[in-house]
Amino acid sequence: MLDRYGSMSLEQLREEYQRQAANYQQLRERRLNLDLTRGKPAPEQLDLADDLLSLPGLDFRDAAGTDCRNYGGAAGLPELRAIFGELLGIGVDNLLAGNNSSLELMHDTLTFALLYGVPGGAGPWFAEPGRKFLCPSPGYDRHFALAAQLGFELIRVPMRPHGPDMDVVADLVATDPTIKGLWAVPNYANPTGVVYSERVVRELVGMPAAAPDFRLMWDNAYAVHPLVAATAPVLDVLGMAADAGQPDRPLVFASTSKISFAGAGIGFLGASTANITWYLRSSAVRSIGPDKINQLRHARFFGTADGVRAHMARHREILAPKFALVERVLTERLGAAKVADWTRPAGGYFVSLDVLDGTAGRVVGLARDAGVALTPAGATFPYGSDPDDRNIRLAPSYPNLAELGAAIDAVATCVLLAAAEKLLGADAPESVSVGQR
Amino acid sequence: MLDRYGSMSLEQLREEYQRQAANYQQLRERRLNLDLTRGKPAPEQLDLADDLLSLPGLDFRDAAGTDCRNYGGAAGLPELRAIFGELLGIGVDNLLAGNNSSLELMHDTLTFALLYGVPGGAGPWFAEPGRKFLCPSPGYDRHFALAAQLGFELIRVPMRPHGPDMDVVADLVATDPTIKGLWAVPNYANPTGVVYSERVVRELVGMPAAAPDFRLMWDNAYAVHPLVAATAPVLDVLGMAADAGQPDRPLVFASTSKISFAGAGIGFLGASTANITWYLRSSAVRSIGPDKINQLRHARFFGTADGVRAHMARHREILAPKFALVERVLTERLGAAKVADWTRPAGGYFVSLDVLDGTAGRVVGLARDAGVALTPAGATFPYGSDPDDRNIRLAPSYPNLAELGAAIDAVATCVLLAAAEKLLGADAPESVSVGQR
Repeated sequence: MLDRYGSMSLEQLREEYQRQAANYQQLRERRLNLDLTRGKPAPEQLDLADDLLSLPGLDFRDAAGTDCRNYGGAAGLPELRAIFGELLGIGVDNLLAGNNSSLELMHDTLTFALLYGVPGGAGPWFAEPGRKFLCPSPGYDRHFALAAQLGFELIRVPMRPHGPDMDVVADLVATDPTIKGLWAVPNYANPTGVVYSERVVRELVGMPAAAPDFRLMWDNAYAVHPLVAATAPVLDVLGMAADAGQPDRPLVFASTSKISFAGAGIGFLGASTANITWYLRSSAVRSIGPDKINQLRHARFFGTADGVRAHMARHREILAPKFALVERVLTERLGAAKVADWTRPAGGYFVSLDVLDGTAGRVVGLARDAGVALTPAGATFPYGSDPDDRNIRLAPSYPNLAELGAAIDAVATCVLLAAAEKLLGADAPESVSVGQR
Repeated sequence: MLDRYGSMSLEQLREEYQRQAANYQQLRERRLNLDLTRGKPAPEQLDLADDLLSLPGLDFRDAAGTDCRNYGGAAGLPELRAIFGELLGIGVDNLLAGNNSSLELMHDTLTFALLYGVPGGAGPWFAEPGRKFLCPSPGYDRHFALAAQLGFELIRVPMRPHGPDMDVVADLVATDPTIKGLWAVPNYANPTGVVYSERVVRELVGMPAAAPDFRLMWDNAYAVHPLVAATAPVLDVLGMAADAGQPDRPLVFASTSKISFAGAGIGFLGASTANITWYLRSSAVRSIGPDKINQLRHARFFGTADGVRAHMARHREILAPKFALVERVLTERLGAAKVADWTRPAGGYFVSLDVLDGTAGRVVGLARDAGVALTPAGATFPYGSDPDDRNIRLAPSYPNLAELGAAIDAVATCVLLAAAEKLLGADAPESVSVGQR
């Protein structure tokens, strides 16, 4: 019977290590080939939207009679913006619909900020040396990589159960004018599953900022992606910001990448009128409008906001059992040893697994050598560097249940082996050699 | 019988002026509402691709078996790149397929150049003050507006019958290191219809450049858009550049905007391996791949390069009569007066109309007041300023034949009236007051 590692004698721990090393050797002999790296929808989820594959059919006009096949309509299809505006709590005039990626919209808003500056700012950000971005961590690796490539210094901020550590954030933002923004996934954050509380959101939109053009990159990627019956409320961040006298602070992003098709969905940008005007002016030389046919396809497919909610309930039927399986296997395999902790998210796409400090990289390496690909240790931190070498992001959505169970079981073996190895240090038995150090 | 204006006596010219003024008053009484401003495909052209509206159907896998609904595939669908690679004379590995706009790809390549620099360059262009772009004129207003917004000074270069004036271009590029690029529409240029000769292309790719990272923005928007039986050859600009020792100089752009749907087509970027690698690396933080479903839709619809060619023949059946009508009306109405000249393009989307120097703005204003919207005078020149106030771009594609005939006839009346008015100067009869000066 597995026991708490911290209470074991040296002899017990050595025995445990040898037990897990043997488990690991058996694991390797299974020659698994499984992938838990990215939050990709499973084929069964994509199947739910297969009607899109033959839409819109011959009726190519939107509700206003516009021929969606031709040029034009930079703001996107009004009826699609109405559907997602209702879900996001944003008026149609303050929500743009774009092409197939909200990440593109995030990139382009930051690029326009670099080239032209933003409303309330003093000019192009490119001309401001030492500009920084706050990165609540663990967070989304692509957010961090985007800001880093665009020349921002990444500042790690601790993530708490209801959002980023606001003592740290408020102090930094109030005092450092080179801090130009903060990344936020307010609902079911990647990877922690954290839902930002109303108090945290009020502080974020209202706190004094040394940079007059400080921006919240508000990536509401999982707004309608609950794993339980009750969806967390989508707070009216734009209204709250306006009430706080900072209407231009939040830039809201969302997409249907995990609603319809990951690669062929629609991205959205919600913002104050000043920001929307700025974005449209900045992008006017770039585009003669987004793919309105794909927007029409989506509007026809979903019909209404309730149509989206009903669709997401079908996603949940596929996803919730996977998350339940992860929880069950991790509890069974890791519950007693007390060398790991993990999240039980109520929505989103990830389980955030914290292993014994100093072993995350080793766990990922052991798993890789056993045929289970995990997101690189540290990926959820700025510059891919987790100061505690502790956090691992698990993405349960893509594999089927059998694969997922095998993968999580394998990960658990690696977690235990790495923990025993770490706790033993120089006392680890030399006869057992597993994985590459 | 209309006569050559230049050979008229003052009295004859005053009579002619009064005749055209009367024509113009009749024209205004018709209360036309016609638009020749933009090169938009007509609904009948878009209809040709309506099968796209229910494609790809349930088979969502590409030839390699990839599920096109999910994330991935930054370079775009290989089979679609093969089809358009054949049409453009570019190998699959050197051609990327993107979202619905080649203008976006042009914008993004220049933005990446500003932020990161390009292969062969010394760093971010943003840091280089006084950077310039050469603009063969008349040219495409959106090219010029894009470069201007991104902070390039626009340098006007004369357009000749076989491409830009190479004496001017070669001298400027050889001596001025702040000249970073040149806009080119090599086949059926916008608006002149000029097809760049092989000699001009060889000079462009091989000429010495003071800037080591000088780029040709090679917008082959009309490569497969002839208006006559024989399509002008698509020269292998990448191969010619490589032969000249300048493999990274051209960036080739194309799209299906005027092949399938203007707003829901596919954009392409063709370039050297170094440039392709640079583009993919630069855009990796921006996107998790283009809309592969739309690419699959296009691959299925066209099937092969010959499928595209056959499709373009159907476009030609719709477009060629419109261009013939423009030619007929302009000849009938303007042939004798010798106050205007215009192009007879063998492909593309425009007729370039040169009116009496100093009257283009007046013609556009007269036409507007008579209910015919034309592209603003000067739009085909940098900063919207035509030094001779001479050039007007006519876009015959969108209106039907009856509307087009009426619009061109109206334009002809405005051209004649403005010319007589101009030639008379202070001698124009005061009793006749037309339009707003």
